[in-house]
Amino acid sequence: MAILEKAELVANAAGRIVPETVNGRPQVPYMGVGKYRPLDGKASPPIRTAADYPENGDKLVPDLESALRKCGLRDGMVVSSHHHLRDGDRVALMALETAAKIGVKNLTWFPSASFPSQKSAIELMESRVIDHIEGSMNGPLGDYCTQGKMHGMGVLRSHGGRWQAIQDGEVHIDIAVIAAPTADPFGNCDGSHGKSACGSLGFALADSIYADHVIVVTDNLVPFPCVPWQIQGNNVDYVVEVDSIGDPSRIVSGTTQITRSPDRLRIAEFVARFLRDAGIMRNGFSFQAGSGGIALAFVSYLKQMMKQAGVKARFVRGGSTKYLVELLEEGLTDYILDGQTFDLDGVRSMATNPLHVATSPFTSYNYHGKGNFASMVDAVVLGATEVDANFNANVVTHSDGRLLHGIGGWQNCLEAKCTILAVPSFRDRIPVIVDEVTTLCGPGELIDVVVTERGIAINPRRQDLLDAVKGSKLPIRSLRELKEEVERICGGKPQRPVHRDRPVAIVKWVDGTVLDTVWQLS
Amino acid sequence: MAILEKAELVANAAGRIVPETVNGRPQVPYMGVGKYRPLDGKASPPIRTAADYPENGDKLVPDLESALRKCGLRDGMVVSSHHHLRDGDRVALMALETAAKIGVKNLTWFPSASFPSQKSAIELMESRVIDHIEGSMNGPLGDYCTQGKMHGMGVLRSHGGRWQAIQDGEVHIDIAVIAAPTADPFGNCDGSHGKSACGSLGFALADSIYADHVIVVTDNLVPFPCVPWQIQGNNVDYVVEVDSIGDPSRIVSGTTQITRSPDRLRIAEFVARFLRDAGIMRNGFSFQAGSGGIALAFVSYLKQMMKQAGVKARFVRGGSTKYLVELLEEGLTDYILDGQTFDLDGVRSMATNPLHVATSPFTSYNYHGKGNFASMVDAVVLGATEVDANFNANVVTHSDGRLLHGIGGWQNCLEAKCTILAVPSFRDRIPVIVDEVTTLCGPGELIDVVVTERGIAINPRRQDLLDAVKGSKLPIRSLRELKEEVERICGGKPQRPVHRDRPVAIVKWVDGTVLDTVWQLS
Repeated sequence: MAILEKAELVANAAGRIVPETVNGRPQVPYMGVGKYRPLDGKASPPIRTAADYPENGDKLVPDLESALRKCGLRDGMVVSSHHHLRDGDRVALMALETAAKIGVKNLTWFPSASFPSQKSAIELMESRVIDHIEGSMNGPLGDYCTQGKMHGMGVLRSHGGRWQAIQDGEVHIDIAVIAAPTADPFGNCDGSHGKSACGSLGFALADSIYADHVIVVTDNLVPFPCVPWQIQGNNVDYVVEVDSIGDPSRIVSGTTQITRSPDRLRIAEFVARFLRDAGIMRNGFSFQAGSGGIALAFVSYLKQMMKQAGVKARFVRGGSTKYLVELLEEGLTDYILDGQTFDLDGVRSMATNPLHVATSPFTSYNYHGKGNFASMVDAVVLGATEVDANFNANVVTHSDGRLLHGIGGWQNCLEAKCTILAVPSFRDRIPVIVDEVTTLCGPGELIDVVVTERGIAINPRRQDLLDAVKGSKLPIRSLRELKEEVERICGGKPQRPVHRDRPVAIVKWVDGTVLDTVWQLS
Repeated sequence: MAILEKAELVANAAGRIVPETVNGRPQVPYMGVGKYRPLDGKASPPIRTAADYPENGDKLVPDLESALRKCGLRDGMVVSSHHHLRDGDRVALMALETAAKIGVKNLTWFPSASFPSQKSAIELMESRVIDHIEGSMNGPLGDYCTQGKMHGMGVLRSHGGRWQAIQDGEVHIDIAVIAAPTADPFGNCDGSHGKSACGSLGFALADSIYADHVIVVTDNLVPFPCVPWQIQGNNVDYVVEVDSIGDPSRIVSGTTQITRSPDRLRIAEFVARFLRDAGIMRNGFSFQAGSGGIALAFVSYLKQMMKQAGVKARFVRGGSTKYLVELLEEGLTDYILDGQTFDLDGVRSMATNPLHVATSPFTSYNYHGKGNFASMVDAVVLGATEVDANFNANVVTHSDGRLLHGIGGWQNCLEAKCTILAVPSFRDRIPVIVDEVTTLCGPGELIDVVVTERGIAINPRRQDLLDAVKGSKLPIRSLRELKEEVERICGGKPQRPVHRDRPVAIVKWVDGTVLDTVWQLS
């Protein structure tokens, strides 16, 4: 499974150079938006029989080691985890360290995302317990990957792409380890209750359905039935009770702060005004915004405008925060459709309000379904590390070539009816608007508007939006003009990273094709 | 697909003679409880892509004919429907009659159950639009089958067995037609709201997940999102709006009546007293009872005993009725876990009370999962058409050999910790306790207690139960003794049906093996 130092490379439809084979598996290079057509059937997990499971439904085993042994853990297996506990998760490392103790090697760790608090996974890669990580690598793990130190190649996928990869059989999970804030001995589990409550458990749903073996780890065991259950015990092999699955203070932030930067507040206000003036903010509309400072400020501005105009949304998409919960509780939206919960108000609301609905990457994002929710959203507000003059954007690497972020639902959200990147025009005197993105994560044809503190650029493909805001007071400018202005301010274009011709990770598109490559830095 | 007049027959582990091939498909004869081990992977439905579905999520087509044509309906296909609308359903026949109009032939109709109001399906079998029915046949359709008039062979499965058959790829559904009391244009749908509300839609869930094509038919179209959704639009191809999906007066009975027969009241009281005196009725216990007059009376008696003893159940299993809803609302159970809803109180409760949880045959009954809910239930109270002295029971045919009932969840419920058949000892002067059941549906080793108006028989395998009621005032008797008494009253054993050596239907066991055969009557 070693990275081929001389991997065969090929140019894909976006003109990006990508490896033809990754970790021994042939890849399909990106063919363009909506061009790749799957031919096969979905993954076919083994048929089990109730004859092999306890009749009384009690699947408790004493500890995670017993559970992993009973699942037949061995060298080279794929072990998955989810990241609903974010930087507070203790379960993924617990599983990997237990695997180390058992003595297995060359595992593929397949998290829905990895976080800085999990950086000791580096030691497990050094000792080759873990061969490589397939999944978002935030911070130090991504940095380690770009240094070329990971043995196998990283594979970065969106939340929807992860479901697609599991569903389509691209990734076969041998053992899924699911951290559960509440569970019963049968394995039904839920994220919205318990001392480690995190809201939805949607990121673990595909794992529970398709993995050969499923272990639930909980610190809040309740008698059957755990209601509601988002993960079904009928897919679970073993349940393990532990003292703590995570650090509550890092599971949910508690206080998610609106940005105080005047520039970023200005961006947020521009976005809200754009939605209003372009006529997108109207009765029955929908939007999605993330948890960053700009996104929260945007929701706050938009809320005022909705009130002023007497407008009510049909639904808003989470990641939920107290700002979305307020919209719901004040009757400014009928529903929150929520894939993950970013703060305590979100957790409380999901646990108690039937109009705050937990979704999964299947319903929200999976491109290989019969449609998904993402393309029905009227407007989505996203961030980016870089965007080029053709609206192509990057969300995983910085301009210095370092891999520091995951894709999250970002690629999936690009399918919205109006996709808005809300970004400062430069960061730390490095332009965000560039000639060519370091890593291509989102094709420009799907990105409709770029909002910066210096003005709003509308993709020329969206003449309808250009027409809609004609006559408004919005500072509409061309992206090229913004780019040149920012280059003048920053004293030139960002320096291009110097990298070796060795791929260390790939970025998948939502259909499983390879969109771009992350290269080892010199 | 014609029935082989000389089908190869074989004796299975229960000693019943069963065909080796059914409708051209090789069969596995029943091997004993828990003996068959599945080897393959689950069915692998085709991978779809969002590129082929409308971005705005609007899957509405003008009518069912357009939808069926777009799904590529053609000769020989398998078309499925669900029976949550029971005898009030209009959608299944609508689909089959539309297929007739389109001109296709030799369909397999794969309902979760068929009802007397659908008897015009006989004309569609006469004209060979339908080759045969795979699914419960209540009343005239079953009778037609036992007359040997159906072209292909009937296949009777339990609710759990139907999930198992779809999941395991035994039945490949080409087109699923789902009647939905509420739906949105994306295809999300739910049964607990709308003028044709029926409660859960769980019987259609497997169809939605595994069918090649899925059509949702609704008379209550709401804007996206339909919340809650039990069927996910991400599995749906087309949505059709019609004036009415069913006759509300026959979808739910409105008034489900407790039996007034003194004998049957006596049976119900015996059952409740048995649960109490055997110590099964205790804090945190669980039970399931159906919708028949005896079952309702039993719940009523048990409720009084629970109140008297200060006992609260952890959960009760539906089919829900107002009697179960009262238990929930009066705090006598924590939850109702409900597979179908039998009356208006049940529908209202499921729609409004988060402690009244919709389940599916997957969670409740599927034997080919990692366990299921059925085996965790402390006691289940079921009916039967016949039971023999070894506790083997029949639930589909009468002693005259006519097929008149479906299996429902009956076989699945036999996995409960204490399975009780509550039956009159004779009906219309025909003994219910017999030497040999006409059709074997439930192996005696899984049936623990038979309660009749003349006494209670405990399976000798359950010494624990015999011990538990020792010293109680319950009329404990042997089943053989009850049988002889009833034969004296009725003037002898029931006449054995005269049948030809031609199988017209098979009864599957919960693991997909063939438990018994229904024969053509002379």
